Amino acid sequence: MSALEQTQFDKDGLIPVIAQDFETGEILMFAWMNKESLALTIEKQQAVYYSRSRKKLWFKGEESGHTQLIKEIYTDCDNDVILLKVEQVGGIACHTGRKSCFFQKLDAREWISVAKVIKDPKDIYG
Amino acid sequence: MSALEQTQFDKDGLIPVIAQDFETGEILMFAWMNKESLALTIEKQQAVYYSRSRKKLWFKGEESGHTQLIKEIYTDCDNDVILLKVEQVGGIACHTGRKSCFFQKLDAREWISVAKVIKDPKDIYG
Repeated sequence: MSALEQTQFDKDGLIPVIAQDFETGEILMFAWMNKESLALTIEKQQAVYYSRSRKKLWFKGEESGHTQLIKEIYTDCDNDVILLKVEQVGGIACHTGRKSCFFQKLDAREWISVAKVIKDPKDIYG
Repeated sequence: MSALEQTQFDKDGLIPVIAQDFETGEILMFAWMNKESLALTIEKQQAVYYSRSRKKLWFKGEESGHTQLIKEIYTDCDNDVILLKVEQVGGIACHTGRKSCFFQKLDAREWISVAKVIKDPKDIYG
């Protein structure tokens, strides 16, 4: 059976996806894929997610240029989560202009922003 | 507003959680929390998930002894995903006896197991 056939999508046809920097191990973002986006990701060797809010394929970086080039793809013990090891083009994964979406750290029961904005989103998205 | 109040749970009252090895950056597992389990995780400084299959709190390591000691907690730009940086007690996060749940790598369109079993699950769970 092929990898795509073995992969378990949830009742909405989606699977959670973690994107991790291939070199540093930093977790860049979390998103979702449907079967079509996973197939496209494998085919193009570039991350293609499924946007739950826009209800359509999301070619990561199509506006920003911040594409994610696939280095390795993993799944977990239940075949129901995907891990992408990627090269993050432009060094920015987050729509806030930060490298990683996980820039808020728990400190004394509050979320504190601990990563700097590399590029103003206005300059990324025009 | 406190971190717990700012955290966004989905329509089922759950939030996705990624557990990452604090020292190596290796992604250990993916699971879910509800508000109570996140509060307990912060209070006990030890990972407490919510098991969607068993529909109850899941004190990670309660059977296996493979608890996860919290080093840092992050959330993402939308406050709707949690990242735990943990010390994995026993060096085994996966119920298959491997360090990480993400031990299957895509190779020529098939999932190939690439990590060894550290301890036989029969010896972990008795």
